[in-house]
Amino acid sequence: MTMTLHEFAPSGNCYKIRLIAALTGRTLNRRHYDILNGETRTPAFLREINANGRIPVLELEDGRKLPESNAALFYLAQGSPYWPADAWTQARVLQWLFFEQYSHEPNIATPRFWLAHVGADNLSDLQRALLPGKMAQGHAALQLMEDALTATPWLVDSIPTIADIALYAYTHVAPDAGFDLDRYPHIQAWLARVERLPGYQPMTV
Amino acid sequence: MTMTLHEFAPSGNCYKIRLIAALTGRTLNRRHYDILNGETRTPAFLREINANGRIPVLELEDGRKLPESNAALFYLAQGSPYWPADAWTQARVLQWLFFEQYSHEPNIATPRFWLAHVGADNLSDLQRALLPGKMAQGHAALQLMEDALTATPWLVDSIPTIADIALYAYTHVAPDAGFDLDRYPHIQAWLARVERLPGYQPMTV
Repeated sequence: MTMTLHEFAPSGNCYKIRLIAALTGRTLNRRHYDILNGETRTPAFLREINANGRIPVLELEDGRKLPESNAALFYLAQGSPYWPADAWTQARVLQWLFFEQYSHEPNIATPRFWLAHVGADNLSDLQRALLPGKMAQGHAALQLMEDALTATPWLVDSIPTIADIALYAYTHVAPDAGFDLDRYPHIQAWLARVERLPGYQPMTV
Repeated sequence: MTMTLHEFAPSGNCYKIRLIAALTGRTLNRRHYDILNGETRTPAFLREINANGRIPVLELEDGRKLPESNAALFYLAQGSPYWPADAWTQARVLQWLFFEQYSHEPNIATPRFWLAHVGADNLSDLQRALLPGKMAQGHAALQLMEDALTATPWLVDSIPTIADIALYAYTHVAPDAGFDLDRYPHIQAWLARVERLPGYQPMTV
């Protein structure tokens, strides 16, 4: 028996779960949903998979379900070095995970979804009006990471944790939304470091 | 020596840290910043307190600093029943904490800040255009909580955890942003349950 990932494959939030699974030696069943056609908003999905109408959802072998990508990262990293042992280090890992969902994802993943999946010509007026502010805040989030990675090779001290996995997911595809990563040399070196981790798998597998 | 909370007192993100401290029998020093006058964006704040320019920041006795309200909740709840012992229950607590920052806070706390602190007459055209969508998504977040609280007395099973503390903070002041909680009887009963926890302190202390 293996766990199942309910996902939309191009989503970084889904990819981060596949990546931690690969890094910790697990195989996941994968079930695909077309979010562009509302497949995560059907009554059956809302009732059986996630009342919040979102992917990813990690389903355990016995059918228990866990929404929220970073909660799944936490769960799959248990017992591995990607979830460090002491509470202060854990708190700093969580600091980055909350930063990812509040300051990074809405400003990098959302523009990427709009531009690479919805299409620039199909955006609403409101989406178009939001884009410049999101790009500015996305660059601010990248700059914060750049500054942190100037001090240490990984986001929390000297070992890779799920903080790095969570933030790798949408950072490495930020150019899809027009973010030029040439401005962030320490981020680029860190991306390459993630890609050399034993068991690493790219997004497109 | 006690820890210090760098805060803006009316912020629910700051209140949740004061609340878990009270519930776990701690006293915190409090240092106030006027976010309406940019006091968390000064060079000194960015350098010494939080490079992300936000409050709250929890400062330990030895000067180490922890941004992100829910990371501080995690840290202060260690060793208490508010952070349960097994990994699956912990993952579900984190699920709610990420839901709070991604689906609840931007749609309830942000409208509250705009309406109660910035003032309806001072909103930008973009803020005004965003408000109806945020109110709709805020109600969706409240409905999700209502449904969960129909099944169990607390968000995760039958004991209060930091999931409840995190979501109490902005839910109980959601009427400041025009959310009518009469529509959510199970939320109202849960709010009252939180307010009966030993050590509970209101937001305005």
